[in-house]
This record gives sequence, structure tokens and C-alpha cells, in this order.
Amino acid sequence: MKIVVQKFGGTSVATPESRRAAYRHIEQAKEDGYAVVVVVSAMGRRGDPYATDSLLSLLESSEASAAPVNLRERDMLMACGEIISAVVFAQELRARGHKVRAMTGAQAGILTSSDFGNARILDVRTDALHKALADGEIAIVAGFQGADEDGDVTTLGRGGSDTTATALGVALHAEVVDIFTDVSGIMTADPRIVDDARQLAQVTYTEICNMAYQGAKVIHPRAVELAMQGNVPIRVRSTMSDDPGTLVTQAARRLEHSSVFDQSVTGIAHTPNVAQIVVRGEGIGSSSIFQLMAEHQISLDFISVTPTEVAFTVPDGLADTAVHHLSQLGYRSQVRRGCAKVSAVGAGMMGVPGVMARIVDALASSGIDILQSADSHTTIWVLVDGSQMADAVRALHRAFQLAEV
Amino acid sequence: MKIVVQKFGGTSVATPESRRAAYRHIEQAKEDGYAVVVVVSAMGRRGDPYATDSLLSLLESSEASAAPVNLRERDMLMACGEIISAVVFAQELRARGHKVRAMTGAQAGILTSSDFGNARILDVRTDALHKALADGEIAIVAGFQGADEDGDVTTLGRGGSDTTATALGVALHAEVVDIFTDVSGIMTADPRIVDDARQLAQVTYTEICNMAYQGAKVIHPRAVELAMQGNVPIRVRSTMSDDPGTLVTQAARRLEHSSVFDQSVTGIAHTPNVAQIVVRGEGIGSSSIFQLMAEHQISLDFISVTPTEVAFTVPDGLADTAVHHLSQLGYRSQVRRGCAKVSAVGAGMMGVPGVMARIVDALASSGIDILQSADSHTTIWVLVDGSQMADAVRALHRAFQLAEV
Repeated sequence: MKIVVQKFGGTSVATPESRRAAYRHIEQAKEDGYAVVVVVSAMGRRGDPYATDSLLSLLESSEASAAPVNLRERDMLMACGEIISAVVFAQELRARGHKVRAMTGAQAGILTSSDFGNARILDVRTDALHKALADGEIAIVAGFQGADEDGDVTTLGRGGSDTTATALGVALHAEVVDIFTDVSGIMTADPRIVDDARQLAQVTYTEICNMAYQGAKVIHPRAVELAMQGNVPIRVRSTMSDDPGTLVTQAARRLEHSSVFDQSVTGIAHTPNVAQIVVRGEGIGSSSIFQLMAEHQISLDFISVTPTEVAFTVPDGLADTAVHHLSQLGYRSQVRRGCAKVSAVGAGMMGVPGVMARIVDALASSGIDILQSADSHTTIWVLVDGSQMADAVRALHRAFQLAEV
Repeated sequence: MKIVVQKFGGTSVATPESRRAAYRHIEQAKEDGYAVVVVVSAMGRRGDPYATDSLLSLLESSEASAAPVNLRERDMLMACGEIISAVVFAQELRARGHKVRAMTGAQAGILTSSDFGNARILDVRTDALHKALADGEIAIVAGFQGADEDGDVTTLGRGGSDTTATALGVALHAEVVDIFTDVSGIMTADPRIVDDARQLAQVTYTEICNMAYQGAKVIHPRAVELAMQGNVPIRVRSTMSDDPGTLVTQAARRLEHSSVFDQSVTGIAHTPNVAQIVVRGEGIGSSSIFQLMAEHQISLDFISVTPTEVAFTVPDGLADTAVHHLSQLGYRSQVRRGCAKVSAVGAGMMGVPGVMARIVDALASSGIDILQSADSHTTIWVLVDGSQMADAVRALHRAFQLAEV
């Protein structure tokens, strides 16, 4: 039996029109001979009474807010949003003539840790899903949820329904996991910045993670990590079109790239609104600084440590808090707000010499200063002033000839 | 540990004001030294997005209605209404400083048959509830629901949350089950009809069943039956007052009744809008008539069979359908629409001679014709013309001196 898992997010679930578009994708998969497992999010429009936000607002009344919310019960409440979506999907598909079975996360066999609000999937017991598929049913699974060993409902937190979808894909040995969203695929750069940005036919798991982290928020890295571990391909696709989208695999074959030019960089991503904080001084206690930030739940990026200097970035909104805590430890820091991270992402840059050189050249010839840089095997990040972010993205897109197929 | 189960219906859950009133009752029970198990219904106002009706309307869209609704999934959907109520109750009680634990029906150990939409409770596994109570927590249980052996969510149908409450009361050996509602107790008759109708301090299980069936819809007979089997007292009380309400037990002690007059009749109930159907003829096939009605899901009342006549009542709205089906079997029937059932309810009438005589006298002296009558050990029913219903209720209330304590 060849299996596909298809995940539809909140905007795909919210209106009759978007749901009809979703059903056509499900029906196409059936016609193509797949057994189909559908994962749905809660109805995603703000103000919709069954959206997660609306459910949570029930716990924010003046009567309720005098005590911290119990996380176990918050999960019970939130899980209803996806259950409602699953039942609506199932009934509407039934009305279109299909055999269907709606399931909660727990019924779909998703066993998690008891970390309410941010539970980890420990196991997927696929018996019920296999039975449904063997019976010729389309399984509609409420995303974003599972249950712990005690039978308490949990939610998956970060990555939500994406994680449900890839976890099921791995457990069921699905041929592919379709993540339906409101973009038609992964672009070489943000088309609002780069006119000739182009949709990519394929990217690697690592590439999409770095792109997603950098602002192209189409799929959560946690979900990608699961798919990567199980080596199940993901397709990022649009609910509202038949575009095949972007295929995400271990090693993207760049067959479409006919240029003789190297394929070191796949896309350019960016994140605005970060602040650079620099602490200088002889014998600086860098570990005490990192400990302090961790204690206050401030996550750092772009960390650079030298004997006389510690530099890092935080979101603009946290800069004041960070500086305040540093001053309490006796550190004087220098802050530069309104910076932007620009990154060149490419699994193909491993071992290719001169990628950094080309980035530096491209930015310098556009008059853009690099405030700081960092790199991994698959991504090079530079920090620039926010006012130069768009120029930097365009310069790098051009330098790596990403508009050319 | 002395335990009380307190059930709050839809109107008690719906507004901050009514919920505050509910919390005061829960707190009073704690102060009185009880371990408290609370059972809640879904928010009960029409138009409230989390009311059962609103949830069900999601399955009635033009997209969904082309196929019959799947009962298993309808139960999944409906159960969310009570879960949402339970979480809101729990959080608001926590904000008032209490230790609380919200539970789904399944988590509270309610194991049911798989008759979706109308499941029977097979067992209550009280471990989780006992643990919560031992930990000093108020347990807040989502009413109207359970789960079957497969872990599928079920709803209890008729009797709903009342049944949850009495089933838990029996399983936990509760001292009493409080059914909070919008009336302050059981009255001797409808006060809109009888000016001097009086609230009863005590009634028996059988009496309240017959009164409830007859229109005083404060608690479902199915729930009462469970309490009766387990011999757990019920108190019917108002959420919005401190009135002790009406205590419902096996054998009501009529200590409050100081009159030397007999205590044969406790209350007068009534049901308007029934139609009397009479089929006459030699060698009439009464069993074929009953079979026919059962096939068409028409439930009959006031059945009277003689060799040449079959008479019964149906709700007015079903009279045409019943006559149509009878004519198809070749029976000509006579219909009298707009009748009313009036009943004298009293566990004390068993073995008391002359009760029927007094009813006939009272109605005759008020110029009211009895169209038909029926009786059980604890209730005498008479069928009268609807225009004389109120007069009949008043005449019987007077005849049995029910206004006198």
C-alpha cells in the first residue's frame, strides 16, 4: 500500500472554499492510488470561535486570570480546536462520497511525553491507522496533539500539526508528506524583495530548516528534523493550486539546474528586527553572560567570543531586557538596534571554496557593511543594518545567479 | 471521606454570573467538609459557539449535509462542548484559590457501550477520581460523555449530564447528588397554573420520574433510575439561591406534612398537546397496530385495548402520520387533537382506597370530562380536553389539599 500524508493548516481549514480546494487534493491522491492520511490544524482565522486563540481566550477572563493556567487543562482545551476541524473535514468528505474516519491524536496512536504545551512524540502506534487504511478509509487526524501514558491529552507546541504529519509519515513509511500552505513552494528569495526570485523544485532538509528559521515560515524545523531522521520526503505545496511545489529530501538532485555555474547556494533568506549587543572588557566572563541570558529565557544568535569581547544578537524587542540584566552583572554593553540577518543557504556550499569571498564581494560592491558573520556547513549568515537588508538580499541573489534555472 | 457530586446544567455554565453562583455552592460543600465532584454541561445558551447546538451546526452546512452524519464523529464533536466547560470551570475555581482537576468523561473512568449518541454506562472506574479527591482536588468532570472499550468518545444521549452525575454518585458512594437547575425544587403543581402551588421538601425517585415525564423537566428519569438502583439521594436545587431544594430518596419521609389528611398524592403534573386515536371494529388486530407504530418510531401512551377497540395517545404533531399508517393497514381511526394528560403523582397512593374516586369527583364537580384514564402504583393519569387542562390541575391540587403543609 502506498501512503501519502497530507497536512492542511489553519487557513486551509477555515472556509468552505479553502476546504473544497483541500478535498480536491485529497481526491487527486486517491485517484493516484494512494492511501491517504490527512492531518488538520484548528480553524485558523482570528475571531473564529474554534481557532486556538479563541479557545485560549476563555482562560483569560477576569474570573480565570487570577491563577496561572494549568498546562494540562490548557492542552485539553486547545486539542478541541483540531478535533472540531477533523470532524468537519470528515463529514464534508463523506458528503462527497468517500469512506472516512476522523481520529483524535490519541486515537491515531500518537504517544507523547507529559510536557504539556510542548510534548515530544515518543511513539506512534499505527494499528488504528493501518486498520482504517486497510478498510479503504481516508483517515482524518487532529493535528498538534497526542496523549501521554496516563491518557492525558497533550499538545505538541512548536511545529504543531507539521510535526504530527511528518511523525505519521515516518511511522507509516509514507511515500511522501504533503505540507499544504498558502505559498506554492520554497522560493530562492522573498519575491517581495527580489523581482526575479524563482520557485525551487527541490531543496534539502537542511536547506529548508535554515530557510524556515530565517523567515520563510512554511514548515517548522522540528517537523523537518523528524522527516529527515525517517528519510521521508516532504512536499511544500499550495492548497489553492495544482503546482507540484517544492520537494524536500536528503540530497536534492539539482537536475533542473542547467547552468554550468556552481550550485553552491540555493536561496537567500532574511530576518529583520534583531539587535546586536557587544560587551567589551579584559577578562570578560562570557559563560556568566550566557548563563544569565538563559536564566531569563533570552535566546541568543550570532554568538562571537574573543578574549576581550562577547557579541551576540537578540530580537529587537528583548534588547532592553538583555542590557538591563547585563548591567546588573556589572557589564556595560553597546547595542545596535534595527539590524537584519541575511543568509545564503545551500547544502551545495560544503567544500566549495570561495563562497564567503563571493558574499563579501557582492555586499561590498553594493556598499553594504557586514557587521558580523557566521557560518555552518550549509549556510552563511551576515548581519547588516536593517536599512540595507533588501539590497543585501538582492545583491546575493544576483551574485549566485539564483534567477537562472 | 464524605463525597458530594454537584451537577451544573447549561444555563449555570453559560455566564460569569451563573458560574460564580455555582462556585459558591461548590465552596459551601467544601466548607461543609465534603470532597466535591462537579459535573458540567456544555454552555447552554443558544448562539453560544460552544453550546452543543452550535457545534452540531458545523455538520449541517451545505458541504456536509449530503451524507448522513457519522454518529461516532458527532460524539467526538459534541463532547468538546462539555470539555470546554470543564476547563473553564476548573480554571476559574483555581483562580479562586482551589486545587482543581478537570477531566473528560473517559478520564473520569466512565466506560460505556458503543451506542454512539445514546451510549449506556457499563462501568465507572473510579481510580482517577479517588486519586484526585485524595489529593484534595475538586474534580471537574465533563458531563454527557464517556468512552467505549476501543477508546472512542461516546455521548450518553437522553439524560446527559444528569446521568453522569448520578452514575458517579453511585460509583463513588456519594452522600448526595446535587442537581443544580433553574428551579428551586419540585413543586406540587406548575405555579403558573396553580397560585398556591408549594415546593416539596421531599419526593421519592418514582414520584420525580412521573413528574419529570409529565413536564416538570428538572431531571431525566434515566438519571433518577441509576440513583434509585444505587440508593443515592438526589437534591434538586437552584444554582441562583441557597434554598435546600427538594430531596429525592427511596421513601420520602413526609415529616413536613402536619395535616391529618392522607398523604396519598404528592403533586399534580400535566402534559398538553397530545392526540387521542381510537380504532374500532370487530376482531381488530391490536398487535399489528402496535407493531406498525413501533416500526415508524411513534411511541404510544395511554394504551387501552378491548375486543372491539384500541385507543392510545401520541403527540399532536405525530397524529397525522399515525392515522396515515393506520389507513394503509386498512384501519379507520378517529382522532381527537389538542388533549392534555393530567396526572396525580404519589408514592403514597399505593393501597390507599378511594384515590381514583376522589379524582373523578373533583373533575366532575368542575365540569371536566375524563376522556380516558390509566394508573400505576404511584400515578393516576387522566386525559382531558386541552381547554380544561388548567382547570383539571387546579381541581386536583385542591382536592388533595396540596397547598397545605
